[in-house]
Amino acid sequence: MEFSSKLIEQAVAHFSALPGVGKKSALRYVLHLIKQDAQEVGNFSDVLKALKSDLKYCNNCHTISDHEVCDVCSNPARNHQLICVVQDYRDVMAIENTGFYKGVYHVLGGLISPMEGIGPGNLTIQSLVDKIASQQVKEVILALNATMEGETTSFFIFKKLAAYEVTLSAIARGIAVGDELEYTDEVTLGRSIVNRIPYNNSLAR
Amino acid sequence: MEFSSKLIEQAVAHFSALPGVGKKSALRYVLHLIKQDAQEVGNFSDVLKALKSDLKYCNNCHTISDHEVCDVCSNPARNHQLICVVQDYRDVMAIENTGFYKGVYHVLGGLISPMEGIGPGNLTIQSLVDKIASQQVKEVILALNATMEGETTSFFIFKKLAAYEVTLSAIARGIAVGDELEYTDEVTLGRSIVNRIPYNNSLAR
Repeated sequence: MEFSSKLIEQAVAHFSALPGVGKKSALRYVLHLIKQDAQEVGNFSDVLKALKSDLKYCNNCHTISDHEVCDVCSNPARNHQLICVVQDYRDVMAIENTGFYKGVYHVLGGLISPMEGIGPGNLTIQSLVDKIASQQVKEVILALNATMEGETTSFFIFKKLAAYEVTLSAIARGIAVGDELEYTDEVTLGRSIVNRIPYNNSLAR
Repeated sequence: MEFSSKLIEQAVAHFSALPGVGKKSALRYVLHLIKQDAQEVGNFSDVLKALKSDLKYCNNCHTISDHEVCDVCSNPARNHQLICVVQDYRDVMAIENTGFYKGVYHVLGGLISPMEGIGPGNLTIQSLVDKIASQQVKEVILALNATMEGETTSFFIFKKLAAYEVTLSAIARGIAVGDELEYTDEVTLGRSIVNRIPYNNSLAR
């Protein structure tokens, strides 16, 4: 794509660097913004800059939060002996939205990925180990993606926590509620048979 | 969606105001940006602001251009007696990419849309009329979307130019090259029969 304006070209380059955005969509966004109020676009620009300078994280679980300690960590009604380890803020939101979880979180800030140059040192794994070593934690739930990077990170944490007296569990992998067996991939179907659970009337709800 | 940070909420609101971007995608973009260099995000922020302050338009055809007169308008090899009227900059790019068009353009900057509060006064229609009145123009091609707004705008321009000695044409509507009759909607198929053209070997190329 050739542009008649350097500025448009730069703006398109920035937008198309976002995950899943192509050049055509990026140009559409840019032309949309050109038609907006200068103040509206100015606010957008300021908010972008603030993302890098003003964003705060919870001191305890490392999720994004406006407070020093996030709403979940500071809630006495939550079970602080149960920690759910997730990749990022989006996963916290997804699990919170289910309304099923009453423990607290630990946000890693990513997954171990040698391909992208992300090692354990780039994540908050040491902070998790320190937490287990110093606080009364009964169970750690690993809720990471079922990908190569997720599995690697889970295994790394498993090795790190092996020395401590803490129950380690992982969220169940299996067939999604509402899905048909016939269309499920073999690995998921195979795992769901190996990891079968006792039948219980409450599961049907 | 509830966010634990006002800043994230604002950033998501700005991104999801872009055409075709939902809240989930917006959050994905924001979390992606958080992980980028401060300088990279700073540049993005600056480019956004510049879009409203530094962008220049061609004095002649109103397309976006770094020069006072754009590359097409200043090219003596182009046919300046042939003007193609388009909605915006994207359409200029799309037609330029075909390599078939050797005339010049006139960018309206939108389409007449009472629903969105866009009247003829918000577009560059008067500038087009002035051009036809003062310059030697042989033909004006209307290349606007085949939507209600596009047809309304085409008709408005047709009425405005009726007093002048200039040929007015519209780009052909019909079945796309490679498409099958069977799957074409009735209006397009009907129009393509009414507006049939003499068969010519060169069309097969």
